Amino acid sequence: METPQRPPTPILDRVGSYRKLRELSPSDLEALCGELRGVIQDVTCRNGGHLASSLGAVELIVSLLRVFDPGRDRILFDVGHQAYAYKLLTDRRERFSTLRRKGGISGFPRRHESPFDAFDVGHSSTSISAALGFAKARDLKRERHEVVAVIGDGALLNGLAFEGLNNVRSAGSKVLIVLNDNEMSINTRIGGMAEHLAKLSVHPTYRRFKQFIKEQCRTLRRGDTVEEVLGRWKTKLKSLLLPPNIFEEMDITYWGPFDGHRLDELEEIFGLARDYPESLLIHVITRKGKGCPEAEAQPATFHGVGAGTVLGAPSQKKAPDWSRVAARVAERLAEEDPRVVCCTAAMKEGTKLQEFSRRFPHRFFDVGISEGHLLTFAAGMAAGGLRPLVCIYSTFLQRAMDQWVHDICLPGLPVLLCVDRAGLVGEDGETHQGLLDLPWGRVIPGLTFMAPRDQADLEFMMRGWLAREIPGAIRYPRGTVPPSLYRNEGSPLSGWGTPETLHQGEETCLVGVGSTTKLMMDALALSRERGETLPTVVDARFLKPLDETFYRDLLRTHRQLVVAEEAYVSGGFGESLAAFAHREGSPCLVRTLGVGDHFVAHASRAEQWQEEGLTPEHILSFLHVWATASA
Amino acid sequence: METPQRPPTPILDRVGSYRKLRELSPSDLEALCGELRGVIQDVTCRNGGHLASSLGAVELIVSLLRVFDPGRDRILFDVGHQAYAYKLLTDRRERFSTLRRKGGISGFPRRHESPFDAFDVGHSSTSISAALGFAKARDLKRERHEVVAVIGDGALLNGLAFEGLNNVRSAGSKVLIVLNDNEMSINTRIGGMAEHLAKLSVHPTYRRFKQFIKEQCRTLRRGDTVEEVLGRWKTKLKSLLLPPNIFEEMDITYWGPFDGHRLDELEEIFGLARDYPESLLIHVITRKGKGCPEAEAQPATFHGVGAGTVLGAPSQKKAPDWSRVAARVAERLAEEDPRVVCCTAAMKEGTKLQEFSRRFPHRFFDVGISEGHLLTFAAGMAAGGLRPLVCIYSTFLQRAMDQWVHDICLPGLPVLLCVDRAGLVGEDGETHQGLLDLPWGRVIPGLTFMAPRDQADLEFMMRGWLAREIPGAIRYPRGTVPPSLYRNEGSPLSGWGTPETLHQGEETCLVGVGSTTKLMMDALALSRERGETLPTVVDARFLKPLDETFYRDLLRTHRQLVVAEEAYVSGGFGESLAAFAHREGSPCLVRTLGVGDHFVAHASRAEQWQEEGLTPEHILSFLHVWATASA
Repeated sequence: METPQRPPTPILDRVGSYRKLRELSPSDLEALCGELRGVIQDVTCRNGGHLASSLGAVELIVSLLRVFDPGRDRILFDVGHQAYAYKLLTDRRERFSTLRRKGGISGFPRRHESPFDAFDVGHSSTSISAALGFAKARDLKRERHEVVAVIGDGALLNGLAFEGLNNVRSAGSKVLIVLNDNEMSINTRIGGMAEHLAKLSVHPTYRRFKQFIKEQCRTLRRGDTVEEVLGRWKTKLKSLLLPPNIFEEMDITYWGPFDGHRLDELEEIFGLARDYPESLLIHVITRKGKGCPEAEAQPATFHGVGAGTVLGAPSQKKAPDWSRVAARVAERLAEEDPRVVCCTAAMKEGTKLQEFSRRFPHRFFDVGISEGHLLTFAAGMAAGGLRPLVCIYSTFLQRAMDQWVHDICLPGLPVLLCVDRAGLVGEDGETHQGLLDLPWGRVIPGLTFMAPRDQADLEFMMRGWLAREIPGAIRYPRGTVPPSLYRNEGSPLSGWGTPETLHQGEETCLVGVGSTTKLMMDALALSRERGETLPTVVDARFLKPLDETFYRDLLRTHRQLVVAEEAYVSGGFGESLAAFAHREGSPCLVRTLGVGDHFVAHASRAEQWQEEGLTPEHILSFLHVWATASA
Repeated sequence: METPQRPPTPILDRVGSYRKLRELSPSDLEALCGELRGVIQDVTCRNGGHLASSLGAVELIVSLLRVFDPGRDRILFDVGHQAYAYKLLTDRRERFSTLRRKGGISGFPRRHESPFDAFDVGHSSTSISAALGFAKARDLKRERHEVVAVIGDGALLNGLAFEGLNNVRSAGSKVLIVLNDNEMSINTRIGGMAEHLAKLSVHPTYRRFKQFIKEQCRTLRRGDTVEEVLGRWKTKLKSLLLPPNIFEEMDITYWGPFDGHRLDELEEIFGLARDYPESLLIHVITRKGKGCPEAEAQPATFHGVGAGTVLGAPSQKKAPDWSRVAARVAERLAEEDPRVVCCTAAMKEGTKLQEFSRRFPHRFFDVGISEGHLLTFAAGMAAGGLRPLVCIYSTFLQRAMDQWVHDICLPGLPVLLCVDRAGLVGEDGETHQGLLDLPWGRVIPGLTFMAPRDQADLEFMMRGWLAREIPGAIRYPRGTVPPSLYRNEGSPLSGWGTPETLHQGEETCLVGVGSTTKLMMDALALSRERGETLPTVVDARFLKPLDETFYRDLLRTHRQLVVAEEAYVSGGFGESLAAFAHREGSPCLVRTLGVGDHFVAHASRAEQWQEEGLTPEHILSFLHVWATASA
């Protein structure tokens, strides 16, 4: 299925992997970086993936692999989507064309994929903490190798990374932190720390500083008393050369900034760092999208590209997706109600809030990769009388569960979470699935939890929340959304809090939850095609609180309920219905289709639905099982 | 029930509340602080509560209430357990003797308790984010009032607080952050940031600096061009007076440090801060336990005191509690296996790890209030070949759910969470309940989740985990634990992964989960007493994965299962059994007792059990309902 014209890679073909990197001449190394970029661009545009950050990290990765041995040292990539060049150079070149495809290699480091991937990753800001863990294990086991964390400037702004930094000193085990500063996370970077990095980046003394490091390290390596040199060095650094610096104040030696695209400079510095006896933070400036004019010009747009991207071609008009529709409703609500504000955590593009931010610049807040702060900040605004909409991916909401419970639901504050990418997310794989918001969220007291099937109900739910003084959440999946699904024109929407019966059948009732409602209607159509007894179809709409009157009646009038949900079956909505049925002593059986008790690897969303049995055929097979069992 | 001899409070009687504070002379204010301390110490020793931090914050609170108007301004106490003096001075004096008692006032700020409590709190490090939210709401609504966050130095080390700090500059709305630096959180404070604070605290230029602030502010208030003065000021501060300072580098103006027990100094500074046009961080040094010799000497011990504490009396030998027993087993495992390490997040005393830390100083890690880092650090150590035990309270585990899923369970790393205080926690109330670890944790793929009923099984489970290469969690409640419960001496423990039948009865089976197993046996005893048909009693032991063979058999041989669990019923273990029964098509009913779909307020643990129906009588009433229904 591969199209034949791959970019030529003569040097990559020659070296094969990182093992022969040290044999290359400077000019060959430069050329190799170009080849790596070509392959990354080619495969990423075919398969979809993270283009801009991977292009920006090529020289960084090549230099790391010239200095460190990935078979012995531990190189941890924060987030991990910048590590394509690392994959190519650590024995995954042959499989690289399968990137992000079903059964192929992951777009992120995965321990089960390769011994060179030391740590599973996908969410940001874990690398410093994990590196400290590896370093501590090394020292306790009296092993000798280096541990390197490569972290972006956006990821560094997250609280977890700060906690890691704060623990470097007390851990007392050497780690090297390479700050890959491309002056933005997915979006422009946010906050006082970002300003601080920017100031460091332009500080004129650093050129002199670098010279100084080199001289000192040469002294060090000549075998003089290390303590003496270090002592001199530290004082000198502090007093003469360094501007005030947040890392030094946390007692982490800071080196930088260095040009992240100059191989000789990087290699030299990494070599010095490897021989340095203490933890270091090495500040490297790179350019996101480096080498690809389109990606350099619009790094946010080319952060991730879809499969089948043709660079330079005008982007195609797509059918409206859930994110865009939610953002449009948010704009309408903001027009009508001055209390409405909207906030997100480095997901402005992803949640399609650019237009909102342009139209309501003082009522839009992007807090950077700070999910915990996002929710507590929203809680504060709600307590102060505003009505915050929080747009967040389901997978990143996992990082703010306590803030959801403790700061929003416990005090009953009117914050609405628009839980985007809830369900199976496709090619990003295990780390990014949105399968936990439902089972986790439905357990939180005081929450109203909803799942619309179309644009009309999404707007109804958002408006309904605004008309009330309650903590709310609306989950919707990745992908497109029809304006109206199974509605008669002009007829009013169902009420607040109640499910909707889309088809009155008999014996079995199929219960859809948001995105699975269409699936249930498809199963109905298939059933009709086959000339079978037609089931009832219900759109659950409100997952919590449960409309007990409605479901009591449903249990009374059917012999089986089949629930389908795009979430873990374990702890999900189906289980809450099953438990309700049990409490009621109903003989009606409740079965649930959804995601089984496992992590779901990368593949297309359609393949994942298929794999998890979310198909009309599978639903009907349930009916047959029941018919046979009860016959 | 109150004993009569309350400490005398003539000045407090006279002023009544914060409204008349400004009328007091300096000497009366000093005396008032003494009276407040007397009341706090008296009530806290009677009812139990947070003694040391509340004693340390008395002058701080009195000064804040002299300068700010809590009816208009928003004063947010981080964590909130230091705010007893605030409660006393904001219309809760009459009810203060009911502190932490059922139906009485909470030990933490609660919006529903008083309009002076702006934000619900209990977990740490939320105040800066919430303050920014309040400030943003104020500015958008064009209101005029101050927003003050009072945060301890321990809480400042948490990632959430860092995310808040990092967003102060971009938020562009004025907040005042009062850093209440008592040089420790619950434990000694941890990390590079703590070192930094310590350095700031002793910097000699600050005395001059304070003088400078005053002069400048006077200039400011005389009506000169604000921009000019600020411009001069900033340059001067940066170049002449300030040592390098992490807050200034995040573009937050820093004032301090000031003596947090000098009323005149605090009042003056807070007055200047109120009139200052930008966000500020004001660094105040206090002494935890101030005014109470016992608490000053041992602030960690007197962080929280139990009801009925007599200061100066020797502490009584208590029956071993779950924390202590888990810590002892951890020590034994560490003796036997060099890979075993133990870590916690500012809960060393609470989880009774002092002895472990003394015996294995290089294998014990207290990372400070950094729950996310705690789990990812442990994951790194596990990936590096160690076997980390993580001791954490259930309520604080809510802060590290993503790290649990993403960093531990997805890669399948052998980290064991010892989930302490899992269940109803008593007097700390809503914010501290440990009711979510079970429903949230049991949904995570790949996790082995356990709940022992006694010391013997706790050790069995910890050893069983160590013998395997799996992510594990063991939940146990607050309180004492018997060495052995319902065991014949010498008979072996039940196997790994299987429930245990404690009594073979008929018709109904009572299923206990950890702490509720004793409850089920008590119900059996009551049933025997009443001469009724005796139920079977099972100790579930393993919550996940489910021993399907065992439960299939149980469902086949009984007409009803009654599960009791110390967690939310919604999404809990009982629901997983009910769903299993439904999947199996079993006619056996599954009912669950546990905590309903609400937040559980402060009361004693016994009262909370009673309130939630966790009593033998209530369990037996279930049996009768069934008997009647099926008759």
